[in-house]
Amino acid sequence: MLSLRGIFPPIPTPFRQDESLDLENLKANLARWNDEPLAGYVVAGSNGEAVALSSEERFQLVGAARAAIREDRLLIAGAGAESTRQTIELTEGMRREGADAVIVVTPSYYGPRLDDTALLDHYLKVADASQLPVVLYNVPVYTGLDLPARVVRELATHENIIGIKESGGSIAKMDSMVNGTPAEFQLLSGSASFFLAALVVGAVGVVPALGCLAAERISALLLAYESGNLDTAREIQASLVAPNEAITSKFGIAGLKAALDLIGFYGGPVRAPLQAITQEERAILEDTLAEADLI
Amino acid sequence: MLSLRGIFPPIPTPFRQDESLDLENLKANLARWNDEPLAGYVVAGSNGEAVALSSEERFQLVGAARAAIREDRLLIAGAGAESTRQTIELTEGMRREGADAVIVVTPSYYGPRLDDTALLDHYLKVADASQLPVVLYNVPVYTGLDLPARVVRELATHENIIGIKESGGSIAKMDSMVNGTPAEFQLLSGSASFFLAALVVGAVGVVPALGCLAAERISALLLAYESGNLDTAREIQASLVAPNEAITSKFGIAGLKAALDLIGFYGGPVRAPLQAITQEERAILEDTLAEADLI
Amino acid sequence: MLSLRGIFPPIPTPFRQDESLDLENLKANLARWNDEPLAGYVVAGSNGEAVALSSEERFQLVGAARAAIREDRLLIAGAGAESTRQTIELTEGMRREGADAVIVVTPSYYGPRLDDTALLDHYLKVADASQLPVVLYNVPVYTGLDLPARVVRELATHENIIGIKESGGSIAKMDSMVNGTPAEFQLLSGSASFFLAALVVGAVGVVPALGCLAAERISALLLAYESGNLDTAREIQASLVAPNEAITSKFGIAGLKAALDLIGFYGGPVRAPLQAITQEERAILEDTLAEADLI
Amino acid sequence: MLSLRGIFPPIPTPFRQDESLDLENLKANLARWNDEPLAGYVVAGSNGEAVALSSEERFQLVGAARAAIREDRLLIAGAGAESTRQTIELTEGMRREGADAVIVVTPSYYGPRLDDTALLDHYLKVADASQLPVVLYNVPVYTGLDLPARVVRELATHENIIGIKESGGSIAKMDSMVNGTPAEFQLLSGSASFFLAALVVGAVGVVPALGCLAAERISALLLAYESGNLDTAREIQASLVAPNEAITSKFGIAGLKAALDLIGFYGGPVRAPLQAITQEERAILEDTLAEADLI
Repeated sequence: MLSLRGIFPPIPTPFRQDESLDLENLKANLARWNDEPLAGYVVAGSNGEAVALSSEERFQLVGAARAAIREDRLLIAGAGAESTRQTIELTEGMRREGADAVIVVTPSYYGPRLDDTALLDHYLKVADASQLPVVLYNVPVYTGLDLPARVVRELATHENIIGIKESGGSIAKMDSMVNGTPAEFQLLSGSASFFLAALVVGAVGVVPALGCLAAERISALLLAYESGNLDTAREIQASLVAPNEAITSKFGIAGLKAALDLIGFYGGPVRAPLQAITQEERAILEDTLAEADLI
Repeated sequence: MLSLRGIFPPIPTPFRQDESLDLENLKANLARWNDEPLAGYVVAGSNGEAVALSSEERFQLVGAARAAIREDRLLIAGAGAESTRQTIELTEGMRREGADAVIVVTPSYYGPRLDDTALLDHYLKVADASQLPVVLYNVPVYTGLDLPARVVRELATHENIIGIKESGGSIAKMDSMVNGTPAEFQLLSGSASFFLAALVVGAVGVVPALGCLAAERISALLLAYESGNLDTAREIQASLVAPNEAITSKFGIAGLKAALDLIGFYGGPVRAPLQAITQEERAILEDTLAEADLI
Repeated sequence: MLSLRGIFPPIPTPFRQDESLDLENLKANLARWNDEPLAGYVVAGSNGEAVALSSEERFQLVGAARAAIREDRLLIAGAGAESTRQTIELTEGMRREGADAVIVVTPSYYGPRLDDTALLDHYLKVADASQLPVVLYNVPVYTGLDLPARVVRELATHENIIGIKESGGSIAKMDSMVNGTPAEFQLLSGSASFFLAALVVGAVGVVPALGCLAAERISALLLAYESGNLDTAREIQASLVAPNEAITSKFGIAGLKAALDLIGFYGGPVRAPLQAITQEERAILEDTLAEADLI
Repeated sequence: MLSLRGIFPPIPTPFRQDESLDLENLKANLARWNDEPLAGYVVAGSNGEAVALSSEERFQLVGAARAAIREDRLLIAGAGAESTRQTIELTEGMRREGADAVIVVTPSYYGPRLDDTALLDHYLKVADASQLPVVLYNVPVYTGLDLPARVVRELATHENIIGIKESGGSIAKMDSMVNGTPAEFQLLSGSASFFLAALVVGAVGVVPALGCLAAERISALLLAYESGNLDTAREIQASLVAPNEAITSKFGIAGLKAALDLIGFYGGPVRAPLQAITQEERAILEDTLAEADLI
């Protein structure tokens, strides 16, 4: 069983100014992240603008990332799509490219029709077909759909479904997923902003956008928690809320990329229709990061 | 300027039992629809399960449809995608396949970041790049995003943006779009269920799922309205609400396909995770259609 | 059976600068409205800030309005409350104060528990207990709850439930309510902004905030429609959308009151936490009304 | 400064079979709760069906509760209403009846108009006028409105606003409220289901519906957490999720009342339009409570 303990930042996808894939800068970024205290990476996820990539680009991205990622680290590849069929194809492609696991966001376009039966059918077919372990992924802010805890509990009994990234932020739901599922089923906090609370109810790891900027800080939180230093963990957690908000709900992926540029990684442009942040927003972002001692 | 007057059913995409594209049955369906009083077809739209198709499949579908559609009818091809880049590629592909216009649903995944600026930027870039006329497409029930009327009014001044399919159902919004836009900008009702109301505020046509089953009825509504027989139009309109609901919000695309099967077209399966309707639902559907004299 | 044909503006409740009830200005306003082509008034409704009034104030308001309203016009009093018990008490009080009918907004606070059974139970008990005819009232923008058409169809068979004010704006829903209910059941458009569309599917009247400012215009729309002059009706309808938006979704009740002040009625302050509109908003409002020839 | 440390169950309001206030059973319930490890009670809150009570009934309820509550325990009275004016009147009435503090839910009916300015204005006026300390109350599931953290941070500097009951469940928001506010500002978890997570980010107490049934269990959680026994706290927390859900989101206040009846307190009926739970639901509820060792 693959362990999901640790920090798995969902890395952004670097683009050149013309919005084409920039695999050189991907490798350069990963070379630096390889020195940070991370357990692996989520590649081609929501934060990687996966929905704006073609399947071919998603494969290229994962292949290039695999070549640049340290051997002892996991590559979890985003393989979600609206149809079960496409999802299975993406899953197979990600295996060919060297991913260690796939992370599969809920379909959502036909949301009013995606009842428990449809969601169970989708994930069970994907898990049956996939040669890689499957991580569920729930992110209502993007999908408008909240994968019900009862569905997760049922899916957790499938031997090829090893965990879930929960970005919805409901701690009670996380608690009920951890406690209603086999011990092997692993919960990943979908954000640094509620990581400590997620740990307390049984999460083993986190997929934090903020991990691209603050891996040491988040790792220190995890170690403090695991070694029983709750006060230290609380203090660190409190320091993460404002910078996390700046690069997620407040300024989005363009904010995260701008922050990477600020600290010497390659951030670069987002793909349209996403828009670069304004100069004014950049100033606020810089202040927020500085106040949090992240630059 | 392409006229959008008339009935443009958004046709479902036929699949074989293994969920692969069934272009033979597509052609057979179109051969029958060619005898119905329609002005054209929307191919590879929401109702065509476009989000569950690969780009290649979307092109095949449109190419095959083109070959089967009467010369005097329009083929409006769905070319929406999450990125501006992909949308432009789809638009160009649809032109190659013989489409007469493209219909472009709003991007939506990064909804919280898709403000007016982003939406304007998206559609203006697409309209500039496209060699085909562009029809905007707003469908909040699927996208969770409502394209603001003020954005539509601004887009309507672009010479390559010829209209909008509005599925949101707000008549006041439709009114404000028609009255705030150039006379050439054409409004299409996104549903048969509010077609007459849309006509009254200035719509010229309709993109009705129900048009796959009831083209004559909907055409009669249009003719009655245009010739001043409002009472007849009202009577027809009233007869459309229940069957329309059955094949849209109530039973979804699987309901529409089941209805096609019931009346001798090829409906066939939906792609997972969409699910076939149950026997019980089929019975309700059949009753609803029978009561509306549609079978 | 009380006829609901015509225009019934939901009048705002005048307050003095200290936010106390100003019944003198209520009477002065009504004296002017009595000369306008109206069929009656909705008093102590959403637009009347009823939720900000005590029961005693609601009764005073209705009593004072009764004394000031022409005999040949209807007074429809808002009697909605969160509990069935309170609603029945309000209904009885409104009868004592001389109301001709009550209008009862859906309860909503415990929305997740207000299923069909609860809503049916509520309205049937109210209708059984009320000595006045009952008008249902659905306004999702305020309540977050959409009274289902199937519930309305069932309620419409009760002899004391004479109609519904539908503010949700879905024409298809209105159509299905009119066509699935007894001929005596009367539909009132909840807004001037979709009045013509509502008429087309069978509405008999309208409860328009804009009716406080533009009674003649809205009345002319109704007469044009009823006499078969659809083009005139359409033209008038188009002219109502912008000013209607200004005094509802855009600037709210404070906007309506400011507009009344602008045209010589008494608008006055709103009750906190509602806020007066700003000077800048007032300028926009004035422009909008001027452009629509309403001042 | 009043300390909000501890467990403050929001007690339901007992009604007789005819739905009238049953103050005798209120006293009997309180006599039993007085022996439980509680710090006080919230009376006439959401869970007390306050929106279904008249102001007079709310005062009677609080007066009767005061007489029955141990001297060393706090009575926090619900004083929320839609207008600032009513809220201030309720606040003053609650003081007369002997409440120690008031808890003030956000207004919500005119939600689209309740921006930061309106919310600040409301709470500042209430806090200025109130002779009792004020606790803010945010409960989006009922109000459809989420009091922004930035507004809370600003309100927290008012000396008469001593804390907030946060029922929205976002731990990141709670963290940002605790860390952005003066040390004296006290956070109350709005539910037992995320109490431990709330403690970890700095909450001092909880207002748990489940506290009516499981005071000892929740108190043990608090003590375990405060004495550094995180494992024990986690175990207890996990045991609370299912029973908490049963008496809140699943079966609502009727479920809580039924649960009280099951364990020998007086639950009794809810006020219409709320409905009693069915026999089938009661069986599920009983099973859930039994599995959690609460009966």
